[in-house]
Amino acid sequence: MAETQPEKIVTEETQTKPVEQNTTQVVEEKKEGDDQIIDPYSGVNLSGKAIDYNKLIEKFGCSAIRPDHLERIEKLTGQKPHHFLRRGIFFSHRDLDLILDTYEKGKPFFLYTGRGPSSDAMHLGHLLPFIFTKYLQDAFNVPLVIQITDDEKFFHKGDDKTDLEQYIKYGIENIRDIIACGFDPEKTFIFSDTGYMGGEFYKNVVKIQKHITWNQLKGIFGINESDNTGKASYPAIQAAPSFSNSFPHIFGKSKDVPCIIPQGIDQDPYFRMTRDVAFKLRYPKPACIHSKFFPSLLGINAKMGASDPNSAIYLTDTPKQIEKKINAHAFSGGGKTKEEQEKYGANLDVDVPYQYLTFFLEDDEKLAEIG
Amino acid sequence: MAETQPEKIVTEETQTKPVEQNTTQVVEEKKEGDDQIIDPYSGVNLSGKAIDYNKLIEKFGCSAIRPDHLERIEKLTGQKPHHFLRRGIFFSHRDLDLILDTYEKGKPFFLYTGRGPSSDAMHLGHLLPFIFTKYLQDAFNVPLVIQITDDEKFFHKGDDKTDLEQYIKYGIENIRDIIACGFDPEKTFIFSDTGYMGGEFYKNVVKIQKHITWNQLKGIFGINESDNTGKASYPAIQAAPSFSNSFPHIFGKSKDVPCIIPQGIDQDPYFRMTRDVAFKLRYPKPACIHSKFFPSLLGINAKMGASDPNSAIYLTDTPKQIEKKINAHAFSGGGKTKEEQEKYGANLDVDVPYQYLTFFLEDDEKLAEIG
Repeated sequence: MAETQPEKIVTEETQTKPVEQNTTQVVEEKKEGDDQIIDPYSGVNLSGKAIDYNKLIEKFGCSAIRPDHLERIEKLTGQKPHHFLRRGIFFSHRDLDLILDTYEKGKPFFLYTGRGPSSDAMHLGHLLPFIFTKYLQDAFNVPLVIQITDDEKFFHKGDDKTDLEQYIKYGIENIRDIIACGFDPEKTFIFSDTGYMGGEFYKNVVKIQKHITWNQLKGIFGINESDNTGKASYPAIQAAPSFSNSFPHIFGKSKDVPCIIPQGIDQDPYFRMTRDVAFKLRYPKPACIHSKFFPSLLGINAKMGASDPNSAIYLTDTPKQIEKKINAHAFSGGGKTKEEQEKYGANLDVDVPYQYLTFFLEDDEKLAEIG
Repeated sequence: MAETQPEKIVTEETQTKPVEQNTTQVVEEKKEGDDQIIDPYSGVNLSGKAIDYNKLIEKFGCSAIRPDHLERIEKLTGQKPHHFLRRGIFFSHRDLDLILDTYEKGKPFFLYTGRGPSSDAMHLGHLLPFIFTKYLQDAFNVPLVIQITDDEKFFHKGDDKTDLEQYIKYGIENIRDIIACGFDPEKTFIFSDTGYMGGEFYKNVVKIQKHITWNQLKGIFGINESDNTGKASYPAIQAAPSFSNSFPHIFGKSKDVPCIIPQGIDQDPYFRMTRDVAFKLRYPKPACIHSKFFPSLLGINAKMGASDPNSAIYLTDTPKQIEKKINAHAFSGGGKTKEEQEKYGANLDVDVPYQYLTFFLEDDEKLAEIG
């Protein structure tokens, strides 16, 4: 005989829209013409327009990475910041300064990132957070946890044909690709939700679920009443690795080691929610560092989709396949006609092969030369 | 980028009310005057009337335990059925016949029961399913799993003052009382959700969550949009122990060992839901055997409440305290006046001390004599 307890801490405000408490950041109300819908499950809906990342910073209530951040990172790590930072590919953050303060004081922090194993084929876009995380791990010499969200993909993508075991297998395949990024084996813990669920990790999941209402999930992720309840359980599972005591084999009972989460900007709603709950649980709020989307082969204004093979270069593609894909499908940023193209040249801002070089060619001079 | 999948299997009907698919049992529509609201979270709301257990059987779509069930159990086990069966205290079932068939064929089945650790003090009412389960384990010589739902109590009763660790502690205290019932240590597995969550058990939780929608939970348990999401996660966790592959250390990979669940009738909504999901997952539907409520000291028409110390006899009460409680608080079923009482005698149907003897005095003749 259980009594129904009113949710005492969550205010009406946080139940309907993702607003952080006890922070000076303010989430903007939706403005007219603000048709950028970007969240973990809507994909990218731009109504045909280019993504306005500055507007996104304003809308999400996060902060731009400024030149002085880069200077500070260079000073603290003794090396040039990663070209993802130099070129604004990682462009936004929450509490990056606090993490840098922590490092400067010689106190520990950790990195957390993840991967939803929607298929066994990862594409270049999926690699971005891992490449950047590898750089951060090397530069700051810190522990890293990587979550493989096989349960999430089952809840959100699974149908009768694709069972849970299939997503677990995809996860194992994806882990092979992730390992290949070269993380420090002594300082890296890769886990799948179905494999790691339990113990202190589950206890944190439970504590987080207690502080999230269905109304909040509706506001943050757009889930609805006919959705399966896994979609309501899951957000706490993505939140839990933000807290160090979810990993007693790494951090013991310590619950106050802060983390920073390299992620695509579309994942930010999860961590806005997590930061809200962290405050209530008296855990440190996770810091975030956000990347832009990796352009689709078909044009820069869309995320690569694992479902359209011509939109993406997969890690399993051979060099020959990649060459063929780029020649046949890559949007070249040219003029509307051959004449226009020869007259004005390419528009590098939308030229996909050039944009790919900004992601993968480290050498600034060589990039300028090609440009 | 996840796609929102429509819930394909769950029909509109099952989303709004708990109706079993593929079974001949039909759940009755709510009739006028049918004001017995009995579910795991409403407690017992009778509008002051006596519980009509026959009406409850009809309303829930379960089946009465008949004299021929008792004969069959006596024949199969070679012993007189437990007095809880003889006296109609366990009065209702789902698929009891299938379990008896299984046993008759020499095939395995198992028992599953549980306890929500709402406090460290269990009362006599809490013991009913355990006493009966102990009898079933001895009579049929089968494995038993006992779930301690510390997470559930945290979701449904926890507040800022009572943290998750407190419910975990209550669970450990309760396990001590449960062990004292004398279960076969070789054949009994007692686990708490926070302790056991993970592995194959979690995989089943995930599979079940995938097949339950928020609308169904609303219909079955009356949870609402401002409830915490743990309440939406939890029902799958109470369902999962119904399936043998949740316990690989007992059943290996075998997913088709059926179970029967001794329980108070208020828990039936959980297992109506579970039976619905079992069909979809191609697992055997769990069988159920339901008890009536153990009377409160204050009168037979209410369940004992752990929150009102005068309504219940606790396992930690001393014999002196029990004597005092019965003398001071037990409803005696007498007439309205001393004269009426002396003239007509007690009404044994509502006399709490007599009713308690029907639960705890095994000897039928002695009970008749006292009556």
